[in-house]
Amino acid sequence: MRLYQDSRAPNPRRVRMFLVEKGLADSVELVEVSINDRAHQEPAYLEKNPLGLVPVLELDDGRLLRESMAICRYLDELHPEPTMFGTDPWQRAQIEQWNRHAELELLFAVAQVFRNSHPFWAGRIKQAPEFADIMREHLAKRLAWLDGELAERSWLAGDRFSIADITAVCALDFGKISQIRIGDDTPHLARWYADVKSRPSHKA
Amino acid sequence: MRLYQDSRAPNPRRVRMFLVEKGLADSVELVEVSINDRAHQEPAYLEKNPLGLVPVLELDDGRLLRESMAICRYLDELHPEPTMFGTDPWQRAQIEQWNRHAELELLFAVAQVFRNSHPFWAGRIKQAPEFADIMREHLAKRLAWLDGELAERSWLAGDRFSIADITAVCALDFGKISQIRIGDDTPHLARWYADVKSRPSHKA
Repeated sequence: MRLYQDSRAPNPRRVRMFLVEKGLADSVELVEVSINDRAHQEPAYLEKNPLGLVPVLELDDGRLLRESMAICRYLDELHPEPTMFGTDPWQRAQIEQWNRHAELELLFAVAQVFRNSHPFWAGRIKQAPEFADIMREHLAKRLAWLDGELAERSWLAGDRFSIADITAVCALDFGKISQIRIGDDTPHLARWYADVKSRPSHKA
Repeated sequence: MRLYQDSRAPNPRRVRMFLVEKGLADSVELVEVSINDRAHQEPAYLEKNPLGLVPVLELDDGRLLRESMAICRYLDELHPEPTMFGTDPWQRAQIEQWNRHAELELLFAVAQVFRNSHPFWAGRIKQAPEFADIMREHLAKRLAWLDGELAERSWLAGDRFSIADITAVCALDFGKISQIRIGDDTPHLARWYADVKSRPSHKA
């Protein structure tokens, strides 16, 4: 299998961390599609994904699968242990709830701060700096909320590390480029971050 | 079971349409949480969802589940037939890919146009009209792309109606309030919309 991806983008990193946690990293060849070099807009790549987004998984028979969470869910079904999506309906529902919170409340906001205010995108896309400011305020509130949640348990969705933790750490690490940081006022979030960082998958 | 929801918001409608498609509508009591009346910010509701978002599913034993897709996935697992999420790993992956496209490319963009430009939110939240304009341009491109995709098959994810179609139609119907419409230049999308509209679940 091949994963078309950009080493610096957050969504491909979700898949790379997932692969390490699953012990599948050696089964997938990484193919770099550099957004900086506009490789994601080249005709050859647009044939794989007309939306020009990374990542894309290419199976050995040539089938293509887009969207990081579709890729992770598919591989989690084929290789169930250890699962990153839960073992029974209620646990899976909790992990889905928290993965969506991590994506919609954190990763989405971080990505919009980056797209709408960072010099990297100036001249490449239209930017709305006002919206970046709105998302920064949103993130400050959400990090405070998450800190309270993590006072009560080890991982986002309970006592089991899951895809929700992967999404959240990829969001927060990606936020650094926009000066979004875990401050001293969120000690439980800092404890959780240190726990994630100690896992080999964090280097992915 | 109880579903706390706003009758006019798109995410609760995804769950309501899902319940009708599954034949489960009579198993769930709908409890209105009016965003217009700010009921989603009342302390009693924030106890159920500290983020103040709708919908929330309350089970008969009092357990709470947030996030529309966590709710639908949970109920789909408990009541597998007819599934809205697919019957084998590859089909499930395809449906997940398309549900995410419908959510991230359509529903997200429509929601941001509404939040950042509609008078409903003026004075309630900070708005960035420039970002609404960016999302309108994005939507025009994505509707043209989707039209091409739907030239080749019945439903978003193939020959089976799925949660991806529910997400897409909820996005497009919600876009009407912001004058986002399916035009004459996207006949395949219009054919698909007519097909969805002919299903009883569309009235949900």
